[in-house]
Amino acid sequence: MDNLDKLIALAFFEDSGLGDITTESILSESFSGMGAIVAKENMVIAGIPVAKRVFHMADPTSLCTSVFTDGDNVTKGDIVFKVEGDLLSLLKAERIALNFMQRLSGIATLTRKFVKTLDNTKIRLTDTRKTTPGWRTIEKEAVRAGGASNHRFSLYDGILIKDNHIIVAGSIKNAVEAVRARVSHLMKIEVEASSMDEVKEALNAGVEVIMLDNMNLGQMKKAVKYIKGRAIVEASGNVSLDTLNKIAATGVDVISCGAITHQACSVDLSMGINQK
Amino acid sequence: MDNLDKLIALAFFEDSGLGDITTESILSESFSGMGAIVAKENMVIAGIPVAKRVFHMADPTSLCTSVFTDGDNVTKGDIVFKVEGDLLSLLKAERIALNFMQRLSGIATLTRKFVKTLDNTKIRLTDTRKTTPGWRTIEKEAVRAGGASNHRFSLYDGILIKDNHIIVAGSIKNAVEAVRARVSHLMKIEVEASSMDEVKEALNAGVEVIMLDNMNLGQMKKAVKYIKGRAIVEASGNVSLDTLNKIAATGVDVISCGAITHQACSVDLSMGINQK
Amino acid sequence: MDNLDKLIALAFFEDSGLGDITTESILSESFSGMGAIVAKENMVIAGIPVAKRVFHMADPTSLCTSVFTDGDNVTKGDIVFKVEGDLLSLLKAERIALNFMQRLSGIATLTRKFVKTLDNTKIRLTDTRKTTPGWRTIEKEAVRAGGASNHRFSLYDGILIKDNHIIVAGSIKNAVEAVRARVSHLMKIEVEASSMDEVKEALNAGVEVIMLDNMNLGQMKKAVKYIKGRAIVEASGNVSLDTLNKIAATGVDVISCGAITHQACSVDLSMGINQK
Amino acid sequence: MDNLDKLIALAFFEDSGLGDITTESILSESFSGMGAIVAKENMVIAGIPVAKRVFHMADPTSLCTSVFTDGDNVTKGDIVFKVEGDLLSLLKAERIALNFMQRLSGIATLTRKFVKTLDNTKIRLTDTRKTTPGWRTIEKEAVRAGGASNHRFSLYDGILIKDNHIIVAGSIKNAVEAVRARVSHLMKIEVEASSMDEVKEALNAGVEVIMLDNMNLGQMKKAVKYIKGRAIVEASGNVSLDTLNKIAATGVDVISCGAITHQACSVDLSMGINQK
Amino acid sequence: MDNLDKLIALAFFEDSGLGDITTESILSESFSGMGAIVAKENMVIAGIPVAKRVFHMADPTSLCTSVFTDGDNVTKGDIVFKVEGDLLSLLKAERIALNFMQRLSGIATLTRKFVKTLDNTKIRLTDTRKTTPGWRTIEKEAVRAGGASNHRFSLYDGILIKDNHIIVAGSIKNAVEAVRARVSHLMKIEVEASSMDEVKEALNAGVEVIMLDNMNLGQMKKAVKYIKGRAIVEASGNVSLDTLNKIAATGVDVISCGAITHQACSVDLSMGINQK
Amino acid sequence: MDNLDKLIALAFFEDSGLGDITTESILSESFSGMGAIVAKENMVIAGIPVAKRVFHMADPTSLCTSVFTDGDNVTKGDIVFKVEGDLLSLLKAERIALNFMQRLSGIATLTRKFVKTLDNTKIRLTDTRKTTPGWRTIEKEAVRAGGASNHRFSLYDGILIKDNHIIVAGSIKNAVEAVRARVSHLMKIEVEASSMDEVKEALNAGVEVIMLDNMNLGQMKKAVKYIKGRAIVEASGNVSLDTLNKIAATGVDVISCGAITHQACSVDLSMGINQK
Repeated sequence: MDNLDKLIALAFFEDSGLGDITTESILSESFSGMGAIVAKENMVIAGIPVAKRVFHMADPTSLCTSVFTDGDNVTKGDIVFKVEGDLLSLLKAERIALNFMQRLSGIATLTRKFVKTLDNTKIRLTDTRKTTPGWRTIEKEAVRAGGASNHRFSLYDGILIKDNHIIVAGSIKNAVEAVRARVSHLMKIEVEASSMDEVKEALNAGVEVIMLDNMNLGQMKKAVKYIKGRAIVEASGNVSLDTLNKIAATGVDVISCGAITHQACSVDLSMGINQK
Repeated sequence: MDNLDKLIALAFFEDSGLGDITTESILSESFSGMGAIVAKENMVIAGIPVAKRVFHMADPTSLCTSVFTDGDNVTKGDIVFKVEGDLLSLLKAERIALNFMQRLSGIATLTRKFVKTLDNTKIRLTDTRKTTPGWRTIEKEAVRAGGASNHRFSLYDGILIKDNHIIVAGSIKNAVEAVRARVSHLMKIEVEASSMDEVKEALNAGVEVIMLDNMNLGQMKKAVKYIKGRAIVEASGNVSLDTLNKIAATGVDVISCGAITHQACSVDLSMGINQK
Repeated sequence: MDNLDKLIALAFFEDSGLGDITTESILSESFSGMGAIVAKENMVIAGIPVAKRVFHMADPTSLCTSVFTDGDNVTKGDIVFKVEGDLLSLLKAERIALNFMQRLSGIATLTRKFVKTLDNTKIRLTDTRKTTPGWRTIEKEAVRAGGASNHRFSLYDGILIKDNHIIVAGSIKNAVEAVRARVSHLMKIEVEASSMDEVKEALNAGVEVIMLDNMNLGQMKKAVKYIKGRAIVEASGNVSLDTLNKIAATGVDVISCGAITHQACSVDLSMGINQK
Repeated sequence: MDNLDKLIALAFFEDSGLGDITTESILSESFSGMGAIVAKENMVIAGIPVAKRVFHMADPTSLCTSVFTDGDNVTKGDIVFKVEGDLLSLLKAERIALNFMQRLSGIATLTRKFVKTLDNTKIRLTDTRKTTPGWRTIEKEAVRAGGASNHRFSLYDGILIKDNHIIVAGSIKNAVEAVRARVSHLMKIEVEASSMDEVKEALNAGVEVIMLDNMNLGQMKKAVKYIKGRAIVEASGNVSLDTLNKIAATGVDVISCGAITHQACSVDLSMGINQK
Repeated sequence: MDNLDKLIALAFFEDSGLGDITTESILSESFSGMGAIVAKENMVIAGIPVAKRVFHMADPTSLCTSVFTDGDNVTKGDIVFKVEGDLLSLLKAERIALNFMQRLSGIATLTRKFVKTLDNTKIRLTDTRKTTPGWRTIEKEAVRAGGASNHRFSLYDGILIKDNHIIVAGSIKNAVEAVRARVSHLMKIEVEASSMDEVKEALNAGVEVIMLDNMNLGQMKKAVKYIKGRAIVEASGNVSLDTLNKIAATGVDVISCGAITHQACSVDLSMGINQK
Repeated sequence: MDNLDKLIALAFFEDSGLGDITTESILSESFSGMGAIVAKENMVIAGIPVAKRVFHMADPTSLCTSVFTDGDNVTKGDIVFKVEGDLLSLLKAERIALNFMQRLSGIATLTRKFVKTLDNTKIRLTDTRKTTPGWRTIEKEAVRAGGASNHRFSLYDGILIKDNHIIVAGSIKNAVEAVRARVSHLMKIEVEASSMDEVKEALNAGVEVIMLDNMNLGQMKKAVKYIKGRAIVEASGNVSLDTLNKIAATGVDVISCGAITHQACSVDLSMGINQK
């Protein structure tokens, strides 16, 4: 059982772990049913594979189809998902599948807006670790569906040296050396810098990526100019649809943005279920 | 391990299940640290007990304190949470605790706006099952922190007979009888009605609660008048800050509303951590 | 894995978690087998779906059939269950399936005796929470197979205010109000009353159900007369085959009875298994 | 988490997995409480360590004491168990602890009756695998508390060759050789024999234990005489309080008996809980 | 999920629990593949059923075949295992299956050398509890594949009274009596003896097996002579390919040897995988 | 419960999951005990933190101390580990702690020999994924204790493009582009090359690391010369104590070696336990 299965299992458990007493009181025999999820507004769809897993967990023999894949633009009225299977299972899975797809499509839709803004640049827009606890993987997939890239997945698949690390280590140089000795030769090292001094120190320590943390536009420009391609430059902090273009104009390579996940709301999808 | 612990464990796993390689490369010995979570905007705070559990899971000996309790109004700049404990654990728990509190306080804050609108009425505002999968319990707690009430928690602790049930059973009467025979004498029965005919049929079947499903204001008024206290009347569908007062004016007893959970965004909280 | 699967898994584990060393030493290849469970005395059968799950867990491809359903009267000599599948799996599942069915049929058989006694009344006989730890769901199903009804399943799907609650709350009224504010509008509230004063207080507090706790027949009659249909009346305490009719005569609506689960012994079933 | 903890966890889950809504609505702060379990009839007490685990799981800081140990005779009115701890936890654990102790003490009490009957003999009375699924370990402890011995715990810690094994192996000799080759030199081998021919064949195959399966008294006597101490002799089948003495008189070494577990009913215990 | 499945799940988790990012970046659709495991040196093969389980866990529809069974001698160049299935799953399972088979075949190969040395004797060579933590069952199977026998599997399926037990009990006699009273009549009792006095005391206490612990050859001969068949005699300690024959010549019945598991290294196997 | 706890739990389960029947029959009360682990030969010690976890799982109140840390050279006779705690728990944990430490110290000791050979070079010696299934993390720690570095931990924290990937992608260039698009900007990309053509193609595709797979010494020299610092160069295949120096002389940056884990045997440690 992987992490997503565990989250879906939690979702089923909290909703019908001891059964659906209304339905079970009424359905004494088993019926086949079919359902269709319809977009109630325009959106970038995401979460189709998650919905498949939800219906599959409720009824392993259920059959799910979709003419769309995550990342497609869908229009109000489009049927984005169809499922056939045991009626009782469909009724149990319905609300859960919708709750997942609505939020994930909300993220993809919002992300797409951010990405569009950067259309004529070569800048990589990435997410952050500011995701819904338990949802990391699927929200990062929704971000990719929206057209952005992922930053490190977690604290163990990427190195990011922050101020607390530097304080404990004594200096950026010490921190970088300690990390270099410990991790595999397949990992780049990123350091968070909030001043030009720190940028210089990081560059001297031989880091591959420098994060400009909450710098203003002027500082960012200066830093980019100084670094001059010797490290990948990432901008972080105060990234919104309003500020995005200005940050892009500073010449950074990467912009990381928490808003594409934590400021996304659910979009509207509904499901019709019929006995077959 | 209850459901919330499982969700928190998922959150830790996805973020640092194999460790925090940056920090572990640098921190060879253990330090004590202290952290403070600060409100970056005005909000109704929620998720304090969740944050405690998060820090406790990272370090069972950590000490958490707060001068606030869930549901309190806090002002930009207020310290809403303090924690002391093992520094490495604080660094691991920081992002997770914030991600939880930001979303839960977002829900409480939005809910409070809805509740205020109903201030001079005796109407009970409730949530729905449109919650973030895996988060049912804590989102329902955030709803209560915001001042609203909870609808049934799940499919097994409340009876709600919907159209699919009625179709399978043949009639509202049949459905109600099947359910009455099967469940304990401590459960009320609610039926979803979308027309006056269904309202009448439900009332004749002796149900204790009637949900007026997506009715317009005129229909609702008529239904309330007809029912005349013989059942609790619940309005459902298209509930927003704009429509709330009008629905209230129809005389219904309960209004259930999905927006207070699925249209809430994270509010802004940040955490400072220092070596002690 | 739901709760019943967990219980069955425990049962398999404790019996053959590290294998069946006798059988495995002898059966080097796999054989098909068939088995039949026979009633060795007259009984009300229960646990057929549980037995299916047991054989299914041992061998997911096993084929189970029965001409009976839970609640049927069977006669000594009847074949109540047939199964075909992998011989080694049948040998592992045999004892467990029998241990389940023997106890559950014992409960159904005893419950049927209690229910028959109330045949000419409209009284609802229910079980209690005095069930075998780990077996709550299946024992409550056996109770329904025997013809009785279920009381609340657990502490979270029904409200029952007892003396300890009243002491802490200060009064029945306080306790009822605290509960009413906290739970959904789909829940009735029951209060345990052991005197007429408490009955009156409960009725004034607007409770929907009153449990007469260990009252004698005279007290019960008085209480029923006083309540006069304004609440459902439940009798509890000292319910046996001897006292059942007298309690019924007091006019209560519901009688709850622990003996139908905790005084039931296993009935006699045996299984024959042959290589096919 | 060992098997017993898993069973207790199932018991808590089924009873209050999502909370005790009545109590939680009323107890907003935490109180200390104390409880006492009282015998309502004479019995052999068992399950004291199980009850401790139950209260400990609800509240790890609870303090349990008892002047008795499993196997002691207690008299109506005796306080058999005391506990102090968090009041809410006591209320949650109460019913579960009682349900365990009532059944286990019922087994110990019934077993004691069987054992007394054999008082002036050197015969070992043992249980069987006919135990409540999920309860194997604790029912076998209750059997020892009652004064009897345990047969093998499961299919993997003892060898018992039955008719199906013999059929598959071709002969008792073949079966014994196959097992001997496979298992460690620390295991004895028992064969089930239902005729004198099988007794002789088993003895020739060098088995250490012979079970006389459902033989009548005459057959048993003959078998004992023939075996003459060359193997341990165990009687099995139709063992009740009525037949026990007659079986004992045949000279067998061991009598195994399912009734001491599956014909035992709960004895009566009750618990009082007070705020401290 | 049995113990081996748990170990395999750990192995998958540690290797690809969050995916195989290289492969997943490249394989956007699913392909069928086939693989073959080849012996790169002569060996006694073991672990074929384990490899099947590994591939089955990665892809339940994979098809595994082998012309060999555990314990067969295979020659450099032999294809010992074939598998067809989903390509991505084969790539994930490859390293794990090899890691298992290489170590298990290493154990079987080394064990075979020990067993050959005893070819003309009737002595039973057994393993010990000195196995790789988590691998007990499969290493004991590899030992049998190599031609040796198993000692007790664990601390609960065989009795072995050691010096610490004797000290606590006060004497060998006391220890034996305490154990005899507690365990089933299907268990033999073994005592560890390191002097002739202890051998005599054990024999007087009626034990069925005596372990001569780290005795020299002369002591062992004396002990065997004294015991004269009244108990099974097991030699333990300093067992290597060099000492094996001399120990055998002392006349003991059983020799237990940790080296066959903890001194075994992986043998060389490799796997080729192709798209089908 | 992290992965190591799960492995230790498996180890306890397989050894004493249902108890230690010998000890439990004899120890009716609880005693305190102390134990000391002694080196029976010279070695590089590893696994001290694992042993602590083992004793802690058996008895959370046990107190473990050591004057050594992983990676220290210890001499025959040194006491490498001391523990005080509940005697029964020490007896249960003893064999498991030893089995872990013996194997891990064996790996550290063998690794140290390899590392010494490279003493006067700047070459990084790394392990591979050829580790004992279930033991990945702790064997990689033992490798570091021995003085070598770790390669990627698993398939998800490092990119390694192999021949199968290249075939599916069509070319090295395609494969590299697909991966670059999908993974975070914190990951380097390594390609396995078995010819100069592949080395050139990889370099042109902009990879950061090139693995020379099973090349002979001449090929390696040529490749190093051609690459000339534009990528990190890793040698892989046929790495043994005999070949190590020659490979080092080719000028590669990194040598990865499976033998340091899969050709390591247990070293000799023993434990004495006394009642305190």
